Amino acid sequence: MKNWEKNMRQVVPYVPGEQPDEPDMIKLNTNENPYPPAPEVQEALKNLRADSLRLYPDCTAGALVHALAQYHGLSDDQVFVGVGSDEVLALSFLTFFNSKKPILFPDVTYSFYKVWAELFQVPYECPALNEDFEIEPGDYKKENGGVIFPNPNAPTGVVLPLEQIEEIIRSNPDVVVIVDEAYVDFGAVSALPLLDKYDNLLIVRTFSKSRAMAGMRIGYAMGNPKLLQYLSDVKYSFNSYTMDQTALVLGVEALKNEAYFQETLQKINDTREWTKEQLAALGFIFKDSKTNFVFAAHPDYSGEELFKALRAAHIYVRRFAGERVKEYLRITIGTREEMECLVRFLRKYTGSSK
Amino acid sequence: MKNWEKNMRQVVPYVPGEQPDEPDMIKLNTNENPYPPAPEVQEALKNLRADSLRLYPDCTAGALVHALAQYHGLSDDQVFVGVGSDEVLALSFLTFFNSKKPILFPDVTYSFYKVWAELFQVPYECPALNEDFEIEPGDYKKENGGVIFPNPNAPTGVVLPLEQIEEIIRSNPDVVVIVDEAYVDFGAVSALPLLDKYDNLLIVRTFSKSRAMAGMRIGYAMGNPKLLQYLSDVKYSFNSYTMDQTALVLGVEALKNEAYFQETLQKINDTREWTKEQLAALGFIFKDSKTNFVFAAHPDYSGEELFKALRAAHIYVRRFAGERVKEYLRITIGTREEMECLVRFLRKYTGSSK
Repeated sequence: MKNWEKNMRQVVPYVPGEQPDEPDMIKLNTNENPYPPAPEVQEALKNLRADSLRLYPDCTAGALVHALAQYHGLSDDQVFVGVGSDEVLALSFLTFFNSKKPILFPDVTYSFYKVWAELFQVPYECPALNEDFEIEPGDYKKENGGVIFPNPNAPTGVVLPLEQIEEIIRSNPDVVVIVDEAYVDFGAVSALPLLDKYDNLLIVRTFSKSRAMAGMRIGYAMGNPKLLQYLSDVKYSFNSYTMDQTALVLGVEALKNEAYFQETLQKINDTREWTKEQLAALGFIFKDSKTNFVFAAHPDYSGEELFKALRAAHIYVRRFAGERVKEYLRITIGTREEMECLVRFLRKYTGSSK
Repeated sequence: MKNWEKNMRQVVPYVPGEQPDEPDMIKLNTNENPYPPAPEVQEALKNLRADSLRLYPDCTAGALVHALAQYHGLSDDQVFVGVGSDEVLALSFLTFFNSKKPILFPDVTYSFYKVWAELFQVPYECPALNEDFEIEPGDYKKENGGVIFPNPNAPTGVVLPLEQIEEIIRSNPDVVVIVDEAYVDFGAVSALPLLDKYDNLLIVRTFSKSRAMAGMRIGYAMGNPKLLQYLSDVKYSFNSYTMDQTALVLGVEALKNEAYFQETLQKINDTREWTKEQLAALGFIFKDSKTNFVFAAHPDYSGEELFKALRAAHIYVRRFAGERVKEYLRITIGTREEMECLVRFLRKYTGSSK
């Protein structure tokens, strides 16, 4: 080891789902939307001009912030945007979680939370989900330096009812509580109505799932202006210009067509319900998911075996390490045709005659 | 103050140059390129398809990394890309500067260095540039936790000769030395030949100036693979997918047309030399700049007065606080026509009969 290596920040990074690119693959491993973004996005792409790229983008991301505020019935100073919800969350950890007390998040949840805590040397504790993979609000009433959880939770897909979310926020007036709503559009109830009531609540969203814009890296946070000012100061101390010109333009366009948005959400949700029925019939077990994925295990087959068999058939799903989840597969809801392929394969594999 | 505010990271953010948008303005305040990106970029924009945006971008930014490696005659594992050189630098501070000893950077330099040091609570010392605004290599031989400086320096425009850069690196084998080459394409000598010799050297570049792509937020670092692995681990612990699909595509295109690149550089450098002659004739003082800006003061007029007068005429330049620099204006080199306007205004303002 060289002497200069002694001052390195040494971390175990988050490992994103793989991005294979095979012509015949069925890609159900990173919760991408099977449908393209709204037609307005394609139209706007056509009108982009290279000439303007010589200029810096608007560092306030004003047009996108305004469009999001309008969409959610908020004022512009209640919205903050970033390079995917991952950047928004990373900057939020850096801004809000500076107590010596541990922050709290579930033992089974988005695995990046632990990575950010380690990166920024934030102490943390992970209360266990109950047997039904549910968050127990009581676990979040101990002394802590902040709270973060997704609703619905990932990778379980399980929803926490709004009253219980409020119970957690109400119990923690002295720290920031982050509700990560990456998947909320697929059928959960948002914590947005609580924003007016709790000035320590931050709600984080992404364009990567329901808005079909994973490729553009757009995420945002909603909270009270004072809370967001702290986040904004840290953002301007990290990178003045985070969102490039094309992301700013396309992000605004992606919000314009509510009918298209609702139509694709409905299709995905319908396909999810159909997929659940099929998986149940094949003997899979899973909790009720209100996301664009199902987190399922089969009593007769190990998670590793199923994962490998699917992969050999060019069907990519996600599997996580960890004692409680290693037998599960997180299966993204693709098109109906893709899910039919998946089900056909699993039916054959499990030898079911159904 | 609410209790939850006690755990906030409180910082004084970097303030980027303003981005006015007036039809008749002459914008010489953020060192943007007056010429558009290479024609290949416009062509590629036309071919972007919205359908693919539903998918995550390549988190390794493989195509862009490879294009940059090829361009500089390096291997792919010697290149790291990020959302502008600001993100690359922010992540570098987080990765490399974790000593309890102070890092060193000049008193007059890119003002973001101090902001990153404060954000990540890195101790720092700022050796003073000499009377000629030059870095004194001897100042960088004390014990430290890392070294960073731009070459050419900003906002002075002054070049540090390669032998003196090597002297600084040679004196600091136990820490990482970052040479920020944001402006190197405009006429300075790069430290690239030193990469093979010093495994603790990181060179950082941007597409925002010479490549005319400020709007796309592309920066990169070059260094030995081991050094970059630490940086990459931190990046994957911060945000897996930093570069969106359009930035990855357009970044590759921007590297293809070397003739166009050299032609626009030559035009800017010619205009810079012409501007220097004119400013000198009007009595301005400045050091020899090898960048796309001139850092100039006038003995008979305060920096504040000149800044305000120019602004009133819709000519935007940049001015910095600080005892040593407050009388100076940092004037970006625009088109010849823009600089003629500037000079006409200054000639009239200073009452010169020339």
